[in-house]
Amino acid sequence: MNGTLLEAADGAVADGDAPFEAWMDSRCARVEQALRACLPAATTAPGRLHEAMAYATLGGGKRVRPLLAYGAGELVGAPRAAVDAVACAVELIHAYSLVHDDLPCMDDDVLRRGRPTVHVAYGEATAMLVGDALQALAFQALAGAARSIDDPARIGTMVERLAHAAGSLGMAGGQAIDLESVGAMLTRPELERMHRMKTGAMLRASVMLGVLCGPPSSPAGLESLERYAASIGLAFQVVDDVLDVASDTATLGKTAGKDSEQNKPTYVSVLGLEGARRHAAELLGTAHAALEGFGPAARRLRELADLIVARTT
Amino acid sequence: MNGTLLEAADGAVADGDAPFEAWMDSRCARVEQALRACLPAATTAPGRLHEAMAYATLGGGKRVRPLLAYGAGELVGAPRAAVDAVACAVELIHAYSLVHDDLPCMDDDVLRRGRPTVHVAYGEATAMLVGDALQALAFQALAGAARSIDDPARIGTMVERLAHAAGSLGMAGGQAIDLESVGAMLTRPELERMHRMKTGAMLRASVMLGVLCGPPSSPAGLESLERYAASIGLAFQVVDDVLDVASDTATLGKTAGKDSEQNKPTYVSVLGLEGARRHAAELLGTAHAALEGFGPAARRLRELADLIVARTT
Repeated sequence: MNGTLLEAADGAVADGDAPFEAWMDSRCARVEQALRACLPAATTAPGRLHEAMAYATLGGGKRVRPLLAYGAGELVGAPRAAVDAVACAVELIHAYSLVHDDLPCMDDDVLRRGRPTVHVAYGEATAMLVGDALQALAFQALAGAARSIDDPARIGTMVERLAHAAGSLGMAGGQAIDLESVGAMLTRPELERMHRMKTGAMLRASVMLGVLCGPPSSPAGLESLERYAASIGLAFQVVDDVLDVASDTATLGKTAGKDSEQNKPTYVSVLGLEGARRHAAELLGTAHAALEGFGPAARRLRELADLIVARTT
Repeated sequence: MNGTLLEAADGAVADGDAPFEAWMDSRCARVEQALRACLPAATTAPGRLHEAMAYATLGGGKRVRPLLAYGAGELVGAPRAAVDAVACAVELIHAYSLVHDDLPCMDDDVLRRGRPTVHVAYGEATAMLVGDALQALAFQALAGAARSIDDPARIGTMVERLAHAAGSLGMAGGQAIDLESVGAMLTRPELERMHRMKTGAMLRASVMLGVLCGPPSSPAGLESLERYAASIGLAFQVVDDVLDVASDTATLGKTAGKDSEQNKPTYVSVLGLEGARRHAAELLGTAHAALEGFGPAARRLRELADLIVARTT
């Protein structure tokens, strides 16, 4: 293709040769558009709630979860509209979790993505309802994928996967363990289990839901992708812990140094700064190894793994 | 059948002739069992979160939403296991909403079903996560119905319906309007819209998700059932407002008189006590009229409508 953009059969732009930055910009624009289409307008009652839902969701964030969904969906040749629905769903779950995590009864944070957190801007009661409504909207968006996947019966499996990743055995459960661990010394396996749930489960779901939009994959292929997803899921958290220590608030767009201040166990407190950096590099190696059988089609997933480990915010 | 209980093909007990009380007891036991099966054990980490999720969900409540799902599912001959999944899902959404509504930043209530509310018993952060995890579990339970309905592709429609009823255009949105209305004078249409969202949407979804578990219904049949569900949905709230004024805390198992104390608009404040009672009776009439074409098979839905209007708690 020599970098020329070609329209694919379903209207998607085939940009397999595009530089990673261009691919990312294009997919971030796509999920932004899909999120806008899925959020109710601020002119629809209750207007203040809808305005706050948009504030929590649009115009910011690294969109790591949607990008993973796109990378995985494109690897398996999934229909564009289905992957858009998955990208929306995983980002809406992420957005809701940030709104609730920032509340005074949780992390009590006032700054997120360089702006006041939702409860600072709209009040605590609205922030609670914003999170609740965004979670419902995530499942609504995901269910919409049924209209564009080849086997609509698979939507049950996809909803179960998202719910499991978001719930008490995934993200919400990891958050509960995190809260209980303040001031505690966790062993490395305990820390790893917490992060597999708290961050890893949703990053894995982002990859696997993208894959589930496509034609059936071989069990070996699915297993490799699960291994990839699990490795980058953990790597993401290890790097988060490193950045919390090694970066500053202005760069992060959220309050830096909070973990050690709150006496939370982190990879840095367990492994040391250099040990944590080395662990991230190992996980990156595992992720790349898991993709070996996929050839050039897995290019975006490789680039995303590199990005997750090399990021500075 | 002369009151004899017969085993139906799918193992369900055919108790169409049973007294209403016996039918209710049987279905409440069934949803209790289904909820127990679907909640993670308190021995599974995070144990405290799982214990609190069970505390919020089991052993109490009127189970109005599950009963509506059973009544509707049995009317259309839906598979038992699918209706169990729907019954679980709607009750889990209801349970999560109570936990979040009771939080200090919302209604700030300490008593629910005659026991301390979840945040009083387990702390605010855990209560927040309990609600978040129960919502995810509701969608997981609903998606499980795909394994027992005849057309598993319909699960997408069902998930969209539940998400819409729970989200910003349904329950969570009604709650937001409710918060904004404290101290305001709402007109009767405004009050009605708020309640159609806040309580009505989930009661309607309970009926219609039960119906969606069965074989395809005629458009006219679906429309009648929607009318039934909308009427009892509103009637439920009108009666709630009457009871808040006319009952006491010990009888209700929750704090009585809170609405007028918080200066919230209610059907009683808009229509007066007698006017509100009359309105409930009218809505009951509409509900019965909507069921006219269904004959004896709609017996349980008729009895549930009567119960909703005649209840004292």
